[in-house]
Amino acid sequence: MDFAHSARAQDLIKRIRAFMRDHIQPVEEALLREQMAARRGGDWTQWQVSPQVESLKAQAREAGLWNLFLPDAELGAGLSHVEYAPLAEEMGRSFLAPEVFNCNAPDTGNMEVLWKYGSDEHKQRWLQPLLAGEIRSAFCMTEPDVASSDATNMQATAVLDGDEVVIDGKKWWSTGIGHPNCRFVIFMGLSDTGAHRHQQHSMVIVPLDTPGVTIERMLPVFGEYDEPYGHGEVHFNKVRVPKANLIKGVGKGFEIAQGRLGPGRIHHCMRCIGAAERALELMIERGLRRVAFGKPLINLGGNRERIADLRIAIDQARLLTLFAAWKIDKIGVHAALTEISAIKVVAPGVLEQVVSEAIQIHGAAGLSHDFPLAALYATARVLRLADGPDAVHRGMIARVELGKYAKLMAQLGTGKH
Amino acid sequence: MDFAHSARAQDLIKRIRAFMRDHIQPVEEALLREQMAARRGGDWTQWQVSPQVESLKAQAREAGLWNLFLPDAELGAGLSHVEYAPLAEEMGRSFLAPEVFNCNAPDTGNMEVLWKYGSDEHKQRWLQPLLAGEIRSAFCMTEPDVASSDATNMQATAVLDGDEVVIDGKKWWSTGIGHPNCRFVIFMGLSDTGAHRHQQHSMVIVPLDTPGVTIERMLPVFGEYDEPYGHGEVHFNKVRVPKANLIKGVGKGFEIAQGRLGPGRIHHCMRCIGAAERALELMIERGLRRVAFGKPLINLGGNRERIADLRIAIDQARLLTLFAAWKIDKIGVHAALTEISAIKVVAPGVLEQVVSEAIQIHGAAGLSHDFPLAALYATARVLRLADGPDAVHRGMIARVELGKYAKLMAQLGTGKH
Amino acid sequence: MDFAHSARAQDLIKRIRAFMRDHIQPVEEALLREQMAARRGGDWTQWQVSPQVESLKAQAREAGLWNLFLPDAELGAGLSHVEYAPLAEEMGRSFLAPEVFNCNAPDTGNMEVLWKYGSDEHKQRWLQPLLAGEIRSAFCMTEPDVASSDATNMQATAVLDGDEVVIDGKKWWSTGIGHPNCRFVIFMGLSDTGAHRHQQHSMVIVPLDTPGVTIERMLPVFGEYDEPYGHGEVHFNKVRVPKANLIKGVGKGFEIAQGRLGPGRIHHCMRCIGAAERALELMIERGLRRVAFGKPLINLGGNRERIADLRIAIDQARLLTLFAAWKIDKIGVHAALTEISAIKVVAPGVLEQVVSEAIQIHGAAGLSHDFPLAALYATARVLRLADGPDAVHRGMIARVELGKYAKLMAQLGTGKH
Amino acid sequence: MDFAHSARAQDLIKRIRAFMRDHIQPVEEALLREQMAARRGGDWTQWQVSPQVESLKAQAREAGLWNLFLPDAELGAGLSHVEYAPLAEEMGRSFLAPEVFNCNAPDTGNMEVLWKYGSDEHKQRWLQPLLAGEIRSAFCMTEPDVASSDATNMQATAVLDGDEVVIDGKKWWSTGIGHPNCRFVIFMGLSDTGAHRHQQHSMVIVPLDTPGVTIERMLPVFGEYDEPYGHGEVHFNKVRVPKANLIKGVGKGFEIAQGRLGPGRIHHCMRCIGAAERALELMIERGLRRVAFGKPLINLGGNRERIADLRIAIDQARLLTLFAAWKIDKIGVHAALTEISAIKVVAPGVLEQVVSEAIQIHGAAGLSHDFPLAALYATARVLRLADGPDAVHRGMIARVELGKYAKLMAQLGTGKH
Repeated sequence: MDFAHSARAQDLIKRIRAFMRDHIQPVEEALLREQMAARRGGDWTQWQVSPQVESLKAQAREAGLWNLFLPDAELGAGLSHVEYAPLAEEMGRSFLAPEVFNCNAPDTGNMEVLWKYGSDEHKQRWLQPLLAGEIRSAFCMTEPDVASSDATNMQATAVLDGDEVVIDGKKWWSTGIGHPNCRFVIFMGLSDTGAHRHQQHSMVIVPLDTPGVTIERMLPVFGEYDEPYGHGEVHFNKVRVPKANLIKGVGKGFEIAQGRLGPGRIHHCMRCIGAAERALELMIERGLRRVAFGKPLINLGGNRERIADLRIAIDQARLLTLFAAWKIDKIGVHAALTEISAIKVVAPGVLEQVVSEAIQIHGAAGLSHDFPLAALYATARVLRLADGPDAVHRGMIARVELGKYAKLMAQLGTGKH
Repeated sequence: MDFAHSARAQDLIKRIRAFMRDHIQPVEEALLREQMAARRGGDWTQWQVSPQVESLKAQAREAGLWNLFLPDAELGAGLSHVEYAPLAEEMGRSFLAPEVFNCNAPDTGNMEVLWKYGSDEHKQRWLQPLLAGEIRSAFCMTEPDVASSDATNMQATAVLDGDEVVIDGKKWWSTGIGHPNCRFVIFMGLSDTGAHRHQQHSMVIVPLDTPGVTIERMLPVFGEYDEPYGHGEVHFNKVRVPKANLIKGVGKGFEIAQGRLGPGRIHHCMRCIGAAERALELMIERGLRRVAFGKPLINLGGNRERIADLRIAIDQARLLTLFAAWKIDKIGVHAALTEISAIKVVAPGVLEQVVSEAIQIHGAAGLSHDFPLAALYATARVLRLADGPDAVHRGMIARVELGKYAKLMAQLGTGKH
Repeated sequence: MDFAHSARAQDLIKRIRAFMRDHIQPVEEALLREQMAARRGGDWTQWQVSPQVESLKAQAREAGLWNLFLPDAELGAGLSHVEYAPLAEEMGRSFLAPEVFNCNAPDTGNMEVLWKYGSDEHKQRWLQPLLAGEIRSAFCMTEPDVASSDATNMQATAVLDGDEVVIDGKKWWSTGIGHPNCRFVIFMGLSDTGAHRHQQHSMVIVPLDTPGVTIERMLPVFGEYDEPYGHGEVHFNKVRVPKANLIKGVGKGFEIAQGRLGPGRIHHCMRCIGAAERALELMIERGLRRVAFGKPLINLGGNRERIADLRIAIDQARLLTLFAAWKIDKIGVHAALTEISAIKVVAPGVLEQVVSEAIQIHGAAGLSHDFPLAALYATARVLRLADGPDAVHRGMIARVELGKYAKLMAQLGTGKH
Repeated sequence: MDFAHSARAQDLIKRIRAFMRDHIQPVEEALLREQMAARRGGDWTQWQVSPQVESLKAQAREAGLWNLFLPDAELGAGLSHVEYAPLAEEMGRSFLAPEVFNCNAPDTGNMEVLWKYGSDEHKQRWLQPLLAGEIRSAFCMTEPDVASSDATNMQATAVLDGDEVVIDGKKWWSTGIGHPNCRFVIFMGLSDTGAHRHQQHSMVIVPLDTPGVTIERMLPVFGEYDEPYGHGEVHFNKVRVPKANLIKGVGKGFEIAQGRLGPGRIHHCMRCIGAAERALELMIERGLRRVAFGKPLINLGGNRERIADLRIAIDQARLLTLFAAWKIDKIGVHAALTEISAIKVVAPGVLEQVVSEAIQIHGAAGLSHDFPLAALYATARVLRLADGPDAVHRGMIARVELGKYAKLMAQLGTGKH
């Protein structure tokens, strides 16, 4: 048992930190403030690519800090998940860093899908420009009219019709679809309601400019539109794409979704942990600088105990996520179901908790744009829902746990919920 | 001991409910949606008075549902605080109702101050149009550069200079100052640093158009500006107003602030409770309508237990707030310090908790503008900070509690923190 | 709305407090210590009646502080539940007081049952000596072999056979059955499995010396046997009692159990609140007396915030319980189902929380017999289970809450769990 | 980064599990029940050594499963802390196992102290028989008259007087002192109040039969005396031992206490985790076996969510403890202060939480001796206090965390609490 990161990971941590300190931090605050001042609310057609971000991307690529998430040694950095995890934590400290290093969701997930399951054509046409950071993409799964936490509720369809796939239905919370460089989505829909329940769905590549695809609106999160990424509601009306756009074939949607699941969870959770560390730092600094009743706030009431509890919570979340990453690396996603669900409950929850306490120490200023806390709060809150609400993941963990008692249940006849 | 509301209160509850059902609810959703679509972000100079709200105000006044908060039998309805409390709860179910019934903060607090402590001139010039709903007002206390939870940190000044008061300093989170009808603020500042620590501050009426008063910006809460009310940062630069604008005289600021405290706390907390009831209803309805894994969401996992816990929490918060109101009525604010602080910790916290669970049941939709939950969340969060963060109120409660052991402390010599 | 206790209640509170201060407190600690030293563990046959308690009972009766729980104006004090509630709180501060004032469970519940549903013979033979404090009784409902939180699981039987009732089965957690003066139990069992599910059970008076009744053992709670009351496992083997011992008739068990429910809940919960106040006092006193790192413990870390949170929790629990009592008085048990379940979750939980924090401040001493905290902890813990675990009560509250949406559920067809 | 245990540890885990399954489990329940039935309460002079435990010890020693905690490769197993940790977890599943494998506190800590700091004479006379399992020992640090969480409060003295050390004062919560084989204690006391505050205390070996040593009484925990170990109050009245009994010399007490600290914490916490796993198993099994309202309890209300939350909590506690062990191994106790304090807050807390939920599922039976839950609860509760209450450890973590801001604090002048 060895908790030290590999030499390779340690080197990259150092380089990522240095890059962020030297190139991102000096401009981030001003850039975000500027973007905030110029923001256009829900009118995504006016959103723009930041030249500064593009320039940072070029620098990062130059520095070899690019596509680090991809396990492929040629296309990416060839890191294991447990090696990449601490890098994701570092990136989570900044709102810009994930895109700067070409490691932001949902493009990372889409790149993994194309890398693992895509055809040569998919790779050339869509994966290459994504890896180059020239285009962006979105993922269309969640639907407005059903409880999407149960994927079998899905209503949108992707039906084979000769050499084409016909796509119909409504999707929403398609993150990144507002980005001026977004060129395609991976769409998941029902293809064959007669098949086994995990073989009914397909994933299809749909270029954004295909006739019948309409971005209806952008959805705000606590009033913010996450410009220039956005969370879109997208309608598909008799959209036709070539059959070749199917990823891995008809009915493979669930299989791909499962494979996509684990690594993305690690990325999200490690970014949460980085964000939580940053919020804790802001909390402590504010608590030291501001004085009330003759003492720095940090020494008043239960604030020191809060610091301790948050330190413990963050450290536990990090260890659990690293453990999940290691299990995925060593035994695979299927053997790590408990951990993959557990970190989804824990990490966004810890981020929410830290940010919430940090806001209390900042007073109302913490709710404004003067500090990144409100934005971090929104991040945390979205992540408690995205990819399944906490309750669904708790349900999964319980199912695995009770599964250990299958023999007893069989004997008692109490297996059924 | 009798938990039944007075006949007068019961009658008014019925009438308020009927008015809200017949006049407010039918238009509220569409009106808010329209306002949301047309909203201008932080550019408060473009904010507008809604003609529909003005028309509802006229109807409410006509219906005798007007200024119900004011204990004065002629100017208001002559209700005790415990009688008004359930009316505030009803109003808390709507974003429009408080203004429609001319019962919205901070005007209510300002009206109380002028009614209790104002001169005849103050009453004629400022109280009358407020009571008529013709103008609005703001309250300038919190400052950006110090921890304002400790009022003795206050840096802004209001110094007597002959027949004038000279006002200098920065204030922020002045709620309502963006309203097109806002005409004046009540400003609190340091007048005499040599006086006893609770006699150093004064309150002064400052018309918004006085030279030297500048609204620097509006502060967003989680990205929303609370149009057309707003939370402003206001700078006062050598602002001069007549000495007659002083409320009750130099050095009376703390005394007035204390008197202003209790009733406003009751209003806020009861509105929280009304809002919490509404959020719980939304949660249950959504939980019944949406189905996953073969069951309505409300029957999945721990959701029924959540319903129970929230029901308990809301009912306890209501009882505690009513008890605080009754103590203010019967024994006065000073004897109710524990309760007045306790409800400030409890009620916004319960609202936050209910809304948070309701959001989880709604999925990401709960974070968008499709439901009022994100706005209610912001309300809850602001109220955990406005008028002192939770921690300050816990500190006050502990001080009162330990005060009961004064004799023992004296004997042990452990009184000092 | 009036939170003041009636003049009658206020007078009795004063007298109870004076009696406890003058007669109980001076002897309680020594008496308990002596009993603890001489305790005989599970060997209940050696348990003894304390002459000091008998003498205190005589004094209390003399002082008119006797049977105050009974709403009957002649046999008891004729108090409403909301009037008796604060008296129960006072008694809850002492381990001896409930018996001293002849107000201890389960005798109070049994007396109520006999008063409301008993025949003249029952009243003369069993109620009179109970009211006189000459005998004690127990209640046999919970069973070892099934989940007794679902009363329909009950397996023990009480079957009519000519002029007799034949009783068979195992009961446990029959509190008070070890008391040397315990003379009878009220037994609940299945009489008619063919009847409607709430008319299958009967309650029967079973004298303890009836052949076939065996006290198998006393059950410890965290190692203590609650001498001289005890919680017994009792086996009934073909026990025969006259048909006249049936209370209200065959099949009336559920109806009686429901009626017994509300008042007992109020008593238990108010005693919890009194006990919690006592634990809070112990916590604060210890926290003031002991010094670490240069400060009294109470001023270290988050301890003052804990004091505030506990004060809030206790006050909320008290108000909720008083509200439940008032609803029982005014509208009856059936209309107060939510509140009666809610206080069962809240009050023992608050006591557990206060005691747990008090223990932390006392250090390991708090776990020993040097302080009453370990015993109070056991009390709290038992009460989180007795009369249904928290989970069952949360389920009941949710059922009532969702019941408000019957129309919507019917429309959606989602009423079924 | 590698979460796999070493081959050596994996082999020992297997062997420990097999030994426990084959030798301990088959007799444990009956043995404990027998001990419980025959228990003598606080009369420790009647406590006896169990011949069955002695026989199991011989078997364990034979099997090479002996003194595994000791890092010394000759005297112990030469395992690192992170290798021993999972073995401690296994032992934590049983009340007997720690002694059977000669790995029980406080003997392990005393053996470590003697191994690291003892003289040759100490090793021969005291360490050898401890390693052989022939004698037992206790540790006398906590005092009844002061808050012992602040070690500088210590009042007992160990003063050099020529060739002797004179020992005076009262100690309590000296665990294990009631064991019939207990032969000596390690006593910590004040030697020189003039020295630097961390060089005032000494540790001295005091044979139990030295004149002036009196075991005053055994202290119960929730009514149980933890026979045959016990927690004693011990008085030292002008006790004289040879100067050679000093461990490492006058004034070395703090240094030794620090060194003793880390490993013991790992042992305790890993045993908590093993105990928590066992409690979770009991909870699930009971929850599957018992049925209410037509379903196994485990499927009612929020029980499945509880299972998930407990699984997460246990796994996080384990990872944090293993991480702490690894840090001690690699960087030493001083660099692991945060983790060593964090696990002390987390692991007993998790055990308490799991046991508490398991009790709720068991109903009142969970509080009795029919299940090990009440005993496990007492264990958890003691460990939240032993070796410093949670609050002290949170304070330590906050101190380390704020220490990272030393530069900022110096600049602000806010370093002082």
